[in-house]
Amino acid sequence: MTRRGGVTAPRGFHAGTAAAGIKPGTTRDDLAFVFSEFPAVAAGVFTTNRVKAAPVVWSARVAAGRRPVHGVLLNSGNANACTGTDGAQAVRKTVRGLSVLVSELLEAPVGAESFLVCSTGVIGVPFPVERLLVALPRAVAGLAAGPAAAARAARAIMTTDTRPKEAVRRLTIGGRAYTIGGLAKGSGMIHPNMATMLAVLSTDLPLAASQARRLLRGAVSDSFNMITVDGDTSTNDCVLLLANGAAGGRVPPGSRAEVAVAAALNEISLDLARQVAADGEGAGKLMTVTVRGARTTGEARTVARTVASSLLVKTAVHGGDPNWGRVLAAAGRAGVPLDPARLDLAIGGHVVARGGAARPAGESAAARHLRGTRIRMELTVGGGPGTATALGTDLSAAYVAINADYRS
Amino acid sequence: MTRRGGVTAPRGFHAGTAAAGIKPGTTRDDLAFVFSEFPAVAAGVFTTNRVKAAPVVWSARVAAGRRPVHGVLLNSGNANACTGTDGAQAVRKTVRGLSVLVSELLEAPVGAESFLVCSTGVIGVPFPVERLLVALPRAVAGLAAGPAAAARAARAIMTTDTRPKEAVRRLTIGGRAYTIGGLAKGSGMIHPNMATMLAVLSTDLPLAASQARRLLRGAVSDSFNMITVDGDTSTNDCVLLLANGAAGGRVPPGSRAEVAVAAALNEISLDLARQVAADGEGAGKLMTVTVRGARTTGEARTVARTVASSLLVKTAVHGGDPNWGRVLAAAGRAGVPLDPARLDLAIGGHVVARGGAARPAGESAAARHLRGTRIRMELTVGGGPGTATALGTDLSAAYVAINADYRS
Repeated sequence: MTRRGGVTAPRGFHAGTAAAGIKPGTTRDDLAFVFSEFPAVAAGVFTTNRVKAAPVVWSARVAAGRRPVHGVLLNSGNANACTGTDGAQAVRKTVRGLSVLVSELLEAPVGAESFLVCSTGVIGVPFPVERLLVALPRAVAGLAAGPAAAARAARAIMTTDTRPKEAVRRLTIGGRAYTIGGLAKGSGMIHPNMATMLAVLSTDLPLAASQARRLLRGAVSDSFNMITVDGDTSTNDCVLLLANGAAGGRVPPGSRAEVAVAAALNEISLDLARQVAADGEGAGKLMTVTVRGARTTGEARTVARTVASSLLVKTAVHGGDPNWGRVLAAAGRAGVPLDPARLDLAIGGHVVARGGAARPAGESAAARHLRGTRIRMELTVGGGPGTATALGTDLSAAYVAINADYRS
Repeated sequence: MTRRGGVTAPRGFHAGTAAAGIKPGTTRDDLAFVFSEFPAVAAGVFTTNRVKAAPVVWSARVAAGRRPVHGVLLNSGNANACTGTDGAQAVRKTVRGLSVLVSELLEAPVGAESFLVCSTGVIGVPFPVERLLVALPRAVAGLAAGPAAAARAARAIMTTDTRPKEAVRRLTIGGRAYTIGGLAKGSGMIHPNMATMLAVLSTDLPLAASQARRLLRGAVSDSFNMITVDGDTSTNDCVLLLANGAAGGRVPPGSRAEVAVAAALNEISLDLARQVAADGEGAGKLMTVTVRGARTTGEARTVARTVASSLLVKTAVHGGDPNWGRVLAAAGRAGVPLDPARLDLAIGGHVVARGGAARPAGESAAARHLRGTRIRMELTVGGGPGTATALGTDLSAAYVAINADYRS
């Protein structure tokens, strides 16, 4: 399955980039404008952090509204977080600028509330909105469909990411072809940078706003929300979905067509989430923690996330030590009722604990598995129906080095 | 104020140690028996981890019961956690052995349920109870009061601790002198080892069991429970208080005398908690995060602990970077309602953020403060009465190195 085309793969979507120098001294592209020539419904899932960056406050309002939207402007270099009323003002200036430029482009009035904004980068530094405004016409003038434009956009929003992240899914419903595209930024392994994770999904599917929101929430729960890097929820985290219906047809709520759409949305979200979690893998390992037998999906998610984010588990994985006791102990503190005597753990398919106690026979094979870079843990916590998978990483000394001097 | 005498400082308390070789190949003392010649009331605060080590299950039952106790046996080298029914059986054999030996010593029958047990060390490894039983007579035979015996006990329970931890507080009520002593193990900075924290407090105060439990819970809330190292709650964490009343007198519930006792208990608990948090300081920094203006004490505690345990805050402190945005962002995800526009932060007394936005004037002084090893942060989150302080550490590359190969 190709990832080529990314966010511009669905009909009617274009991307443009520009170098605004938002982070002083940089000359690379740091603005990306994802544009739909047709009005689109918007859905968004935003950070639960109480300290929300100004663009998150704005975009959450737009995504919850009833008006169609025409695009998302993303920037790297400055998160516009903890920037007070000046930060909110900067967002308003940005969307007004977009309104003017896109109204000219479409030769029709398009309001400022038709645009969403995402920012990533350092927090607490005043947002240089003038530099952004000056570069904005170039991003709009450069709008193009096709893989090259999408790839430039994916690259422009990178901060400490080591590579751009794109994905595409195609599906056919009643003989009609639909596409979902996407881009993301976020670096899971050793460069969490405020751990900010941004993703924009675009599609030519004909979705109602409420339907798009429901489907996006479902897709995010099993993908982006199951990435755990360092437990810090960013001020800026945001996943957006724009659906412009350009491919026609219908996807009635509750229909089999909708089930297919939900599956495709889940797939593309998981694809992007894995790319985020795996970034920087040359310096570390990607860990998949699957929990089975929980009483509910929610409890399974909680346990999986707790294990995948435990420092002691992460350091043991880094060191290649099948220290299953740390995994059981992390599960035990997840805040979910569980019976220690029913805990079974397999690492790389090798059972190392059964009934809460050691199975030494599996340890050497598990240790060999841990020498690799794709680590799998399966933890059974009882006989319930709840299952979930969390994506995590090991914890390396490089993480500490990079985050100790992020701003300098 | 001297720490000499530790757990044997109050009247009627003795300590004995022995080398049982619980961790194969070690010859140092790894057993410590804290003994009260008079029957004592027991109180305990135990890990909230659902996976509780066998000694925690036993001791929690004893500490919740009505019978007086005569002592606590502690061992290092093996946590007796995730050891199944064999682990529980090992605890029963241990306390039966103590029952026999102490009955001989006191020339009176003392039941097995008169003893508490604490273990620390590797988890998931069968507990070598036979080695412990063989060494037990030596620990009982060596019981002695005085500073040397107390210090040996504090040393015997060390795992990755770099030094023993003891404390003593004296108070006078109605002309009568009372003493509280204590020992602890746990290494806050770079050697969290399952993060296991054990503490035993001894006193000759005359406390009722329910009173001792209430006072201990209060003292633990503001001390041991506010240490955050890596967010991993151990299977073995435990704080015990034994009060034998050997100094006579009365401490009626609700009296001014009780207020004085509560203050002394808080002080000694905080003293020991600070020693735990600061251990290993040669390789790192001790961080004190004080939160003010929260709606309640509980919310203040939650915010303080969340900031002090944030990986991004810890790495910034390690690198000496006054990255106040990370502190505000960590506060924002604590799950407590707060207004970002009311967040003020001072680092080392230098204001770096006010009203949720930058105060650049304070940054260079804050950066100088962060070059030290005793880091203070004061975060104001509103106008409420809630205040709390959390003790944390920076996150160093050494932490990763040590925990990556703890078992090998």
